[in-house]
Amino acid sequence: MRVAILAIGNEVLCGKIINTNSAFIAREIEKLGAKVVHHQVVADSENDIVKGLDYAYTYADLVLTIGGLGPTLDDLTRHGVAKYFDESLVFDEKIYQGIHDYFVRVKKEMPRNNERQAYRLKDGVVIPNPNGTAPGLFFKVDNREIFLLPGPPNELKPMVFEYVLTYLVDQIGQPQISRSYRLYGIGESFAEEKLMVLYKKYPMLNIAPYCSISYVDYVVTTSQKYEEQLMTFEEQFLAIFSDHYGGDQSTKLNEEIIRLLGKKGLTLSTVESCTGGLLASELVNVVGASSVFLEGMITYSNESKIKRLGVNQAVIAEHGAVSEQTAKQMSQSLQSLTETDVAIAITGIAGPKGGTKLKPVGLTYISVTIGDKTLVKSYIFNGNREKIRERATTQALFLLYCEIK
Amino acid sequence: MRVAILAIGNEVLCGKIINTNSAFIAREIEKLGAKVVHHQVVADSENDIVKGLDYAYTYADLVLTIGGLGPTLDDLTRHGVAKYFDESLVFDEKIYQGIHDYFVRVKKEMPRNNERQAYRLKDGVVIPNPNGTAPGLFFKVDNREIFLLPGPPNELKPMVFEYVLTYLVDQIGQPQISRSYRLYGIGESFAEEKLMVLYKKYPMLNIAPYCSISYVDYVVTTSQKYEEQLMTFEEQFLAIFSDHYGGDQSTKLNEEIIRLLGKKGLTLSTVESCTGGLLASELVNVVGASSVFLEGMITYSNESKIKRLGVNQAVIAEHGAVSEQTAKQMSQSLQSLTETDVAIAITGIAGPKGGTKLKPVGLTYISVTIGDKTLVKSYIFNGNREKIRERATTQALFLLYCEIK
Repeated sequence: MRVAILAIGNEVLCGKIINTNSAFIAREIEKLGAKVVHHQVVADSENDIVKGLDYAYTYADLVLTIGGLGPTLDDLTRHGVAKYFDESLVFDEKIYQGIHDYFVRVKKEMPRNNERQAYRLKDGVVIPNPNGTAPGLFFKVDNREIFLLPGPPNELKPMVFEYVLTYLVDQIGQPQISRSYRLYGIGESFAEEKLMVLYKKYPMLNIAPYCSISYVDYVVTTSQKYEEQLMTFEEQFLAIFSDHYGGDQSTKLNEEIIRLLGKKGLTLSTVESCTGGLLASELVNVVGASSVFLEGMITYSNESKIKRLGVNQAVIAEHGAVSEQTAKQMSQSLQSLTETDVAIAITGIAGPKGGTKLKPVGLTYISVTIGDKTLVKSYIFNGNREKIRERATTQALFLLYCEIK
Repeated sequence: MRVAILAIGNEVLCGKIINTNSAFIAREIEKLGAKVVHHQVVADSENDIVKGLDYAYTYADLVLTIGGLGPTLDDLTRHGVAKYFDESLVFDEKIYQGIHDYFVRVKKEMPRNNERQAYRLKDGVVIPNPNGTAPGLFFKVDNREIFLLPGPPNELKPMVFEYVLTYLVDQIGQPQISRSYRLYGIGESFAEEKLMVLYKKYPMLNIAPYCSISYVDYVVTTSQKYEEQLMTFEEQFLAIFSDHYGGDQSTKLNEEIIRLLGKKGLTLSTVESCTGGLLASELVNVVGASSVFLEGMITYSNESKIKRLGVNQAVIAEHGAVSEQTAKQMSQSLQSLTETDVAIAITGIAGPKGGTKLKPVGLTYISVTIGDKTLVKSYIFNGNREKIRERATTQALFLLYCEIK
């Protein structure tokens, strides 16, 4: 099965939007063992869409279009595809109703424009879009198959997982087997060095690292017949990275933390300095966080650390706001103030200014108090202000996760 | 001048590398007023490169290839381009010396493979690469022009700035003029409806909307001779969207807020419920925030609203935690507790549960207290939990910005 991707939109073409959708789709498709053979981006123009489709089918059996399904006049994918396949567009009462209901749900008047989205290819199969107004569409004629997908990633991704990949698995039979491992607190270079021996030992496994700002993912794929080797590999891999492993790619630390604490009936509070609310925000993003996470504080100024939280002024004066001692007092004071079971504190230097030789930019202390025990760890994160804050937040989640597990 | 981009490489094709290069190049080129009309990604295959070039020239006069200039056997761009143009490849002693010197400089032995990079199209012009071993190349025959650029962004970018853009400016002369406007608190469909009359009135302007989760950008471009029309358009545009306009595309609300408050010598505190620290985090991300932003609170539970902040228990009992009255008390209590000049409070229902007919998911109150005045506004944001929280945060920044301006 050969797949081509055709993204449609002036915004992608002029570079305003980076085409992450094509990369996402390609990654998911390749995991199944199908081949992505061509990507294209064309303008919001009916002619260019027709031309692009014509060309894409010289490469592939299946074309996935991305974008151009919106309500405005420059959303022309439906029209271009209809013209290419010489199919008519018909008004679909059910789609219309769905769009109408969407606007009722969000309590807004439905603009006339959105009626455009209720048209579909006559013999097309409609793919529901729970996250927006533009439904997707599947169409097949002879050997040419096509999925029309919306541009916004949160609308596109569920359709890819639920419809495109399912369709492909049906078409190509047995997928490859695959395992993923997410590592925290270790850089790609160091991880790769430690892995050298396993790379050599398991040539039948495709071991691929994917680097992110605050973690490294390893995705290992192979064919079914090497399942045993994959399992031995996994054992050795996890032994090497036991201090860094936080679950597979789909594990979300914030969700795990809320789930684990909920199960144990424990409550949580946070206090942050340099991360300024990022940690709390990650926790609040979990549905149902309110039964576990009670409150947070952002004690950005020294005065707020002392007044609001009750950190000893002398400790800050002697050791500094960014110190093991202050971090420890922060989580301990927070715990007693909020009467929560678990309290976590972060204090660090996010930069670009404020660093010294002894305390460089990126230095961060994270303190976790559970019951009557407190653990403080120190880190030096690199990157700009934003990255340091993100890395500190992820590391805090990882430390918290490890401590409550 | 019409430009097409042809990225070459299996790693981009399979989604392992996100094609940020194409977006970068397109952005830079469009600034000059040239048009990027097509993007493609093809495999590391001589045939696919030839086919891709053939197709790209049906769109464009100038093709930029990215990648495939490395030293390994699957780097085939030079060969593909030579075959397409029916040109021979010749060994270039000077390039060879450059690669050799590079390895001396980085104190490494030069692998035999890198000799491959010393070949160039017979009539091609070599573009030096100070950051790597693969030189770029420019070639022109009849009306077809081509730049061969390396894949690593740190090697590609200097070449684009120093050679590609300079070449384009020479070709197209005077660049276009452009203005941008960022609108908050209005959806694309509604904005488009309001703009219809201006679209008709100013056919000489290219008016393009770019939608984001929590704002809509309008970028208007035209040639120098329509400057006067652009200025009249701008007047009318800003009159229509006076309640939504928050500056041009490069304006960052968080930076503006910190800058404005800093200038006026005012201090700020925040209290959040549904956004859970996102607002504070945006403010803390601004370098130098500490002189303005003193502290934040995340009063997620009702108890914390009452105990920590001093909101009246009866107000919550009567009107609910998500209500105008509670929001107002939150910002007022916060102001007096923290002794800051400005205090802002957010309380809302982020969903997916917790909504009622009267108070649906997305309902959010934002309250700003400045001095002895308090303004409370209510909104209904749509989207999933994450989007509602992001939209509420952006709207809070916008409201705060408008109030302190």
